[in-house]
Amino acid sequence: MQNTSGAADTDVELNLDVLIPDLPSGPLDEYRRRASFNWKLMKLTLEGEEVIKFKNKVWRTLEQDPLFHRNPSEELSRDEYRKLSLLRLKRLMEYDFLPDDEFLENPLLIMILYTAIGLYDWSLAIKKFLAYEFFTLSLRATGSTRHMSVMDELMDFNALGCIALTEMAHGSNTKGIMTTATFDSRTNEFILNTPSPEAAKVWSGNLGQTATHAVVFAQFYGEDGKCHGLNVFLVPVRDPKTLLPYPSITVGDMGPKIGLNGLDNGFLIFNNYRVHKDFIMNRIGDVDGDGKFVNQLDCPKKRMGITMGVLSMGRVGIIGMAVSNMKKALTIAIRYSASRRQFGPVGKPEQPVIEYQMQQWRLIPYLAACYLLDNFSLSFHRDFINFEISVLFGNQNLELSEQGQEIHALSSAGKAFAGWIARDTIQECREACGGHGYLKASALGDLRNDHDANNTYEGDNNVLQQQTSNYLLRLWQRKVEDGKPFASQLGSVDFLDHMEEQLQYSLYIESPKECLSMEFILDSYKFLVCYLMRETAIKLKNELESGKDLFTAKCDSQIYFARSLSLAFIEYVMIQRWDNFIRSDVYDQSLCAVFYKLGLLYGLWALEKHLSILYQAGYCRGPQPATCIKHSVLQLCKELKDECVSLVDVIAPPDFILNSSLGKADGNIYHNIFESILKSKGATERPSWWEEFTLNKPLYASIKPKL
Amino acid sequence: MQNTSGAADTDVELNLDVLIPDLPSGPLDEYRRRASFNWKLMKLTLEGEEVIKFKNKVWRTLEQDPLFHRNPSEELSRDEYRKLSLLRLKRLMEYDFLPDDEFLENPLLIMILYTAIGLYDWSLAIKKFLAYEFFTLSLRATGSTRHMSVMDELMDFNALGCIALTEMAHGSNTKGIMTTATFDSRTNEFILNTPSPEAAKVWSGNLGQTATHAVVFAQFYGEDGKCHGLNVFLVPVRDPKTLLPYPSITVGDMGPKIGLNGLDNGFLIFNNYRVHKDFIMNRIGDVDGDGKFVNQLDCPKKRMGITMGVLSMGRVGIIGMAVSNMKKALTIAIRYSASRRQFGPVGKPEQPVIEYQMQQWRLIPYLAACYLLDNFSLSFHRDFINFEISVLFGNQNLELSEQGQEIHALSSAGKAFAGWIARDTIQECREACGGHGYLKASALGDLRNDHDANNTYEGDNNVLQQQTSNYLLRLWQRKVEDGKPFASQLGSVDFLDHMEEQLQYSLYIESPKECLSMEFILDSYKFLVCYLMRETAIKLKNELESGKDLFTAKCDSQIYFARSLSLAFIEYVMIQRWDNFIRSDVYDQSLCAVFYKLGLLYGLWALEKHLSILYQAGYCRGPQPATCIKHSVLQLCKELKDECVSLVDVIAPPDFILNSSLGKADGNIYHNIFESILKSKGATERPSWWEEFTLNKPLYASIKPKL
Repeated sequence: MQNTSGAADTDVELNLDVLIPDLPSGPLDEYRRRASFNWKLMKLTLEGEEVIKFKNKVWRTLEQDPLFHRNPSEELSRDEYRKLSLLRLKRLMEYDFLPDDEFLENPLLIMILYTAIGLYDWSLAIKKFLAYEFFTLSLRATGSTRHMSVMDELMDFNALGCIALTEMAHGSNTKGIMTTATFDSRTNEFILNTPSPEAAKVWSGNLGQTATHAVVFAQFYGEDGKCHGLNVFLVPVRDPKTLLPYPSITVGDMGPKIGLNGLDNGFLIFNNYRVHKDFIMNRIGDVDGDGKFVNQLDCPKKRMGITMGVLSMGRVGIIGMAVSNMKKALTIAIRYSASRRQFGPVGKPEQPVIEYQMQQWRLIPYLAACYLLDNFSLSFHRDFINFEISVLFGNQNLELSEQGQEIHALSSAGKAFAGWIARDTIQECREACGGHGYLKASALGDLRNDHDANNTYEGDNNVLQQQTSNYLLRLWQRKVEDGKPFASQLGSVDFLDHMEEQLQYSLYIESPKECLSMEFILDSYKFLVCYLMRETAIKLKNELESGKDLFTAKCDSQIYFARSLSLAFIEYVMIQRWDNFIRSDVYDQSLCAVFYKLGLLYGLWALEKHLSILYQAGYCRGPQPATCIKHSVLQLCKELKDECVSLVDVIAPPDFILNSSLGKADGNIYHNIFESILKSKGATERPSWWEEFTLNKPLYASIKPKL
Repeated sequence: MQNTSGAADTDVELNLDVLIPDLPSGPLDEYRRRASFNWKLMKLTLEGEEVIKFKNKVWRTLEQDPLFHRNPSEELSRDEYRKLSLLRLKRLMEYDFLPDDEFLENPLLIMILYTAIGLYDWSLAIKKFLAYEFFTLSLRATGSTRHMSVMDELMDFNALGCIALTEMAHGSNTKGIMTTATFDSRTNEFILNTPSPEAAKVWSGNLGQTATHAVVFAQFYGEDGKCHGLNVFLVPVRDPKTLLPYPSITVGDMGPKIGLNGLDNGFLIFNNYRVHKDFIMNRIGDVDGDGKFVNQLDCPKKRMGITMGVLSMGRVGIIGMAVSNMKKALTIAIRYSASRRQFGPVGKPEQPVIEYQMQQWRLIPYLAACYLLDNFSLSFHRDFINFEISVLFGNQNLELSEQGQEIHALSSAGKAFAGWIARDTIQECREACGGHGYLKASALGDLRNDHDANNTYEGDNNVLQQQTSNYLLRLWQRKVEDGKPFASQLGSVDFLDHMEEQLQYSLYIESPKECLSMEFILDSYKFLVCYLMRETAIKLKNELESGKDLFTAKCDSQIYFARSLSLAFIEYVMIQRWDNFIRSDVYDQSLCAVFYKLGLLYGLWALEKHLSILYQAGYCRGPQPATCIKHSVLQLCKELKDECVSLVDVIAPPDFILNSSLGKADGNIYHNIFESILKSKGATERPSWWEEFTLNKPLYASIKPKL
């Protein structure tokens, strides 16, 4: 995870101050002084010099470009926002922050780039990602050389891409897609058609106003009326010279959304729209010389597993988005809480609200979660890149297929977990900032509204986590039926092979001290996951034996079983990877001590939410386990209180990117709030409609209401 | 709660169809057919004829008035929204929906009126409430006859009121208010001053652009420089003939907020602004002939208790707001879930998503919570009105003071609980609507953003719930020290008097059936609250004995103790009032059966979240309690699944008020979504800035980023 040793000699210190500039002095100084560690060294340890330099380059460039200027109380109409997004997209192309050679040298930088842009504005980052990375990935994955000319068009800005999969009536269930592509051998064309409003393509990002080309998923129908399943087509939707839609297409914008309004999500209706047969993406299916459908997939399970892995890309990205959003929210709320004073002991000055047990307990466990999830996100992203490289250059063997399945499972529960914990973090941060947190200038409202989409797109979280429990149940079945051990390429499931042994343990602790170790937490989690694995398998078996079909039996085994299993499993993996990281990659003792506490705090806080299961399972008995865990959570919050300002300094983006009047690094909250209020439109002006008050007086009770 | 008997004879049925029109036919018909009860009869039982008629009057009037027209995908600039709010406010005055004589006959209607307007638009409802009800209440509570002339000005729309209490640096801690009012005997004037930016009045609703008069809280300073504490002043801020601020005042708007943008919250800075001495609200303090401060309060604890009760008004209102928001969110999500189909058993048609255990468990417990909280809100509002009448007409005795404290305690935890559960309901509903729920036209985003303020204003929830635990701790201390029994005017705490006995119980159940009674739930809650009461008292005692001052000891007894106590206590009260309601007020058996299930579901679902405490406390042992409770929650969800569409029909506002393309009564979700998309601005138009794509091409990698 870190690219440097923790050696804190003078040279490193000197470099550090250039790499990571000092933060402005102000009300936060006191807490910064109290921290037990060097925050710059921690930042360097976590991110490494290359990443810090790269982010500095992106952020400083944007900050100095007037096109990217903004202020926290700015209000844009949707149309203004859309226009700005397009202009900024073009400017990003001109900057080309990650040239191909640098990307090939370190592919991890692509995620760093997108989160750096996303921390500035997610609409812009997603617009760019969909138009370029995701679109070209789809072309490469499903098309062939004859489709590649559009790549050049993309680079010249003569084309802009989008993916059109979801339909009005089908999201998660992609097999139910109803758009048809019927082959017409007389003209060698496909006739794309939308048979009903339910089949309209919807939500496609960039399709609303700007895309010229869409990758369209449709059911392939032969001339004999026979359906050959879902295929993919490259479809020109707008004339790049006029940006007007082609005839026989109705394309438009989804209108205002809860968030991400800089992105033009669109809908698309085909009215027997014809495209040449070469527009079918012929890596999946094709037509032969006789106009007959040819399946291009050898389609064994092996291939399926690999594809599942590759398709994890969107979810891997969302985990990174969620972590970024947590960093932003926590920076705002913790800096605000360390500056804001309210109440205090009789006769003493008011104290910063972070001094209250309540505020510590509300915020610091989420800060710990953010550190652990960030580590998971980075290490898992590295696994994903390695997997992708194997897919491109390695043998497409069974091992790779199994690795694909594991990555699919980890990315599914991981995305759901990350989406939810970021949602909860943002909300807690918003409320922890009290009344002032309700200002748009706090940035927490837009953050919440933009993040919100992460919980339902790229697979609704609740549907998605089933992929993970299904994966674990398949391994269970394989063990029971074929005696194969629980084992996986990345090792995330291996502990389940000792289930029998794990489930014999139970907990005996007598003092809070005894919970203060990662072993305690990991052992408890191992028990928890093993227990939920066994109970879920039994539950499913019982449901099947009661006569239910597999689909129904699985649906009826979700709550308190499969769903809890998925989430506990991903928590375990995250904690386990954090433990690995501390043990093997951190050499500075002062950092190690803080990292260890963060691991303990997150682990115990998360475990506390599962206590009722641990009691139910007999792992816990009597008052001690609950009492000790709760006591330790509060103790750790208190110990981390004086560290937490520096801990957010480590993860905070610069003020310009944060764009919050509550969260600036100088901690001068009231000055900054006032500034943003005065910059808001018409702050001290009489409204143009003032005569509606002074003239046109209403006559009280003059109109009789309708009955 | 209900104003009619449940007798279902033909006459009632006939009246019912006039009072409550049929809902349009569509995809929801099937579920409506399956319900075991008559939804119109349930609505009548819950609301009564008078309230239904009154709401019909308000809503039908608004719907027929072009000034109130709107559509779900409408986007207004802040300025347009503000202007519309003022115009609509005037129109509401012209309608005068609740003339004085009708209000006096049934004071409960005032809350019905405000929630009816609020369900249309909270900005408007709050603007009106602050300008009239809250402003005049403040005048009556703190002023005297010489301040009453402004009442006539209000009615003639020559004045518009606001309350200015909160300052930039002081919200919850009102004692820390820093605005000064210094008496100048030479001119018989008060000099109002804002000593620093931290003392600026902020957040005052209506102050931003439209208020002419503010009720201002400031520290009274005599000419000798002595501070006589917080006093209240009626301060003219804008000239009603020009709407321009008076000299020596800086007043302006807080700018954009997360929600409620139709309301103009404002700030106010006094630069030695002079007002005549008669502008002091002389029920609290006054100046005598010699210019000396005179305390007008006899200020014993008795008076304090009564004041605390009266000040509960805002919180009582917020509980009602929260319930209304839950009704709206649940209507949208449940109707959508009963119409939306996705997946299904192999070979069978796709099934409505409400058929899934997951979706049922996500939504139906919140529906149950909504019913119970609605009952609590209404019955508690009735208690509050009775209390207010006693304050106005009765003796201001000790009993009234104690009742005031109880109402303060119930409204504090009640507001926090209601705010949070509505927040969670809205979020779950938003996610349960999947991708389409992310449309602005779903109405769930604005609902969340508007509701969000409820958790931090009128007392931040986390601070507020401490009022309730403090109240309980006072009763505890009174019992321990003076042997006085736990007892209160409304009876909410009486069960705590049997604490010793309650804490001897423990739970033995062997099958899920045994949890299916309200007695089971209430007994478990009694144990829970008694346990948390005792543990909190012990914790506080230990903290004090360790040498901490009272303030610090209390702060350090919040998490896992006082905070849990407050919330468990208010849940108990809510469940207990629901049990009373079913037992004593519902005569129709089919309704009773459904109400009972709602009580069970909410009670068990809420109890499940406290299971770890119940295990820790020794009330639960072994696997059965958790297993049985969880099993019963799922069983009840399943049983209520076929009722839930009708259960939302009972609480749903009409489509025009709901204003959601996902939640319309006809259930034609895709048609309605398409309609709202096509009505959104520029849906199928090429954007005006299209040449930014076709011309002005960016030159790839042409600019070197800044390093």
